[in-house]
Amino acid sequence: MALIVQKFGGTSVGDVDRIKAVADHVARTKKHGNDVVVVVSAMGKTTDELIHLANEVSHSLPGRELDMLLTSGERISMSLLSMALADLGISAVSFTGSQAGIITDTDHTRAKILEIHPDRLLQAIREGSVPVVAGFQGMSTTKDITTLGRGGSDTTAVALAAALKADICEIYTDVSGVFTADPRVVSAAHRINEISYDEMLELAASGGRVLALRSVEFAKNHHVSLHVRSSFTWEPGTWVREENEEMEQAVVSAISHDVSEVKVTITGVPDRPGIAARIFREIADVGVNVDMIVQNTSTEGLTDISFTVPKVDMASTIRVSNEVAREIGARDVYADPDIARVSLVGAGMKTNPGVTAKMFETLANEGINIEMISTSAIRISCVVREDAIERAVQTLHEAFEL
Amino acid sequence: MALIVQKFGGTSVGDVDRIKAVADHVARTKKHGNDVVVVVSAMGKTTDELIHLANEVSHSLPGRELDMLLTSGERISMSLLSMALADLGISAVSFTGSQAGIITDTDHTRAKILEIHPDRLLQAIREGSVPVVAGFQGMSTTKDITTLGRGGSDTTAVALAAALKADICEIYTDVSGVFTADPRVVSAAHRINEISYDEMLELAASGGRVLALRSVEFAKNHHVSLHVRSSFTWEPGTWVREENEEMEQAVVSAISHDVSEVKVTITGVPDRPGIAARIFREIADVGVNVDMIVQNTSTEGLTDISFTVPKVDMASTIRVSNEVAREIGARDVYADPDIARVSLVGAGMKTNPGVTAKMFETLANEGINIEMISTSAIRISCVVREDAIERAVQTLHEAFEL
Repeated sequence: MALIVQKFGGTSVGDVDRIKAVADHVARTKKHGNDVVVVVSAMGKTTDELIHLANEVSHSLPGRELDMLLTSGERISMSLLSMALADLGISAVSFTGSQAGIITDTDHTRAKILEIHPDRLLQAIREGSVPVVAGFQGMSTTKDITTLGRGGSDTTAVALAAALKADICEIYTDVSGVFTADPRVVSAAHRINEISYDEMLELAASGGRVLALRSVEFAKNHHVSLHVRSSFTWEPGTWVREENEEMEQAVVSAISHDVSEVKVTITGVPDRPGIAARIFREIADVGVNVDMIVQNTSTEGLTDISFTVPKVDMASTIRVSNEVAREIGARDVYADPDIARVSLVGAGMKTNPGVTAKMFETLANEGINIEMISTSAIRISCVVREDAIERAVQTLHEAFEL
Repeated sequence: MALIVQKFGGTSVGDVDRIKAVADHVARTKKHGNDVVVVVSAMGKTTDELIHLANEVSHSLPGRELDMLLTSGERISMSLLSMALADLGISAVSFTGSQAGIITDTDHTRAKILEIHPDRLLQAIREGSVPVVAGFQGMSTTKDITTLGRGGSDTTAVALAAALKADICEIYTDVSGVFTADPRVVSAAHRINEISYDEMLELAASGGRVLALRSVEFAKNHHVSLHVRSSFTWEPGTWVREENEEMEQAVVSAISHDVSEVKVTITGVPDRPGIAARIFREIADVGVNVDMIVQNTSTEGLTDISFTVPKVDMASTIRVSNEVAREIGARDVYADPDIARVSLVGAGMKTNPGVTAKMFETLANEGINIEMISTSAIRISCVVREDAIERAVQTLHEAFEL
């Protein structure tokens, strides 16, 4: 008998039939003798629809009220799921983030979980009930309702699994796990049975959309075993857990790619200490997350600095970059949206030299030019032309025999 | 400078434009120097849609989960209204029933308010903000979310007005106040400027749909001045308050009618002590509210008992009545759904004999037969054929010169 946290995303509870299917699965898990805690997202497009309504009513969109609005989405899915479970003879009790004891900071629309007091959940479990908890939400230290931002329901599930010392945290989604590459791009891509936290972090950060980065960080820090699987086939999926010997044998575990970024270049930047710091401080101050940064070798005291940012932040980044460029006496700023990034991720890279060289050779043999490079201990990323990205992923998948 | 509670019903916040119009009115009240506390219902048909979803997902519909589901409706309207107020430069803070300190009993789907701890509302008012409170909901003594049942938002508004010692409780709705009769039936019907709590109670209980009975009871018990008015014209409406000398001059204040009931008759009932008690105990035990009861004069130890119940309870009432009839040896049970009730309400009746006689004469002159009669100190109700009800209301409205 285990304690299992089961998290169901928006598509998994997207309509009445899906909710009934999820109830069926939860009921079966419970009847097999396990204790189950369920975490749900809002149904399908509910959150988008609520945001649309908010935009129609208001321009100012105060964060506190936006959070109050959005948290109604999980309230609907969790109470409907609890009712469906009742029909199957399972005593189910829904809990808001606040009732589940999820205490966050006061940073509305992107709050961080500070602590969890799961007394009511433990009480419900002791009574033989299934707690059904609203994902994505909590109560701040000033007793206001908060949301955790994108991927927040995954974070709720992992944080609850840690607080409840659950044996497993199952993340149910509309894909059957983590793949060696995007199956829509590489037909030979296959599901990975097991992957380490660090590899999953790199994948999540470099374009993998299966798990939210924050939830993987949380799982790693609290040693929560994650099982990412499909709520449509109910088959076993991908385990995410501590690195072990078996995993280490794989030099490259997966290839991810990302077409959501734009490359911004500032040319003729005076090569003096503090100039780069100033550029990226100003960009950070308008809330833009810079990803890759490359600085050319300096010629005659001038250099070019290129970096990538999300396409949605292109306008504000260019505005700020132009201001800074003027102030520091740089030559020009231009943006190139037609780029994409391909990344190799593998824990075995640490002990296998030559992966980088092989990656560059493989791309060169395909005639694909590399525009930017960034590496970590277990990841290599290259920026290429956007129209070459599918060929890049396919040829690398083949070259590394995934 | 006054403290005003403004309650807006579902049609008043039915869409984005209505929410903006309400925000505009609240902002104007606030800018005139008043403190305002807003209470909102769910937008338009939201509650009905949520109930429909629940019925699709579940047959058992546990009350706790139904309440959790339905309370998402006000969450949406109150946060949207708060955002719209922010756009108008008004600091607005939404509060759930629980956050507003509304403590109820544990009777899900029809909870009663036990106490109110409006600390957060008072704090918000002190800070110059407008609290926007979810109507219809509260938190039970066991910290579960509850709803107050039909008309619950009116009750929330009146209870908050009492707890906050507000000067006025304004109930905004889609009609412009309380009328001398239903304007759809009597074209000469006109808005009443002022009416006593007791008269309003009788009207609410006898078919008037403007205010929920419970909220009027609460207003009477806590001396809350109610002002029922339109959120479409924003014109002054009807005041509901303590009886005063001016009001007493009106013998008949208004005529209400009700076509939502069915008449059930049990014939050949043995005329022994305890028989009537037994019949109505059994009916009460299945949750049916009996309204009017008439017992004929007994002949040869047998009598007929007729009573009215809501049409929605017809099936269960007939089932129970048949069981009881068999047990007590009564002859037969039959139901007549084609009835309607017309009521005269007026505080002046207490001191004006002859109203009853005039009512009967007026109906007789129209050739309308009276099938049942019930009276209180300030109300006379007659059951007539359903197809005669409009003529009955019209002729009485004329006869009593309303």
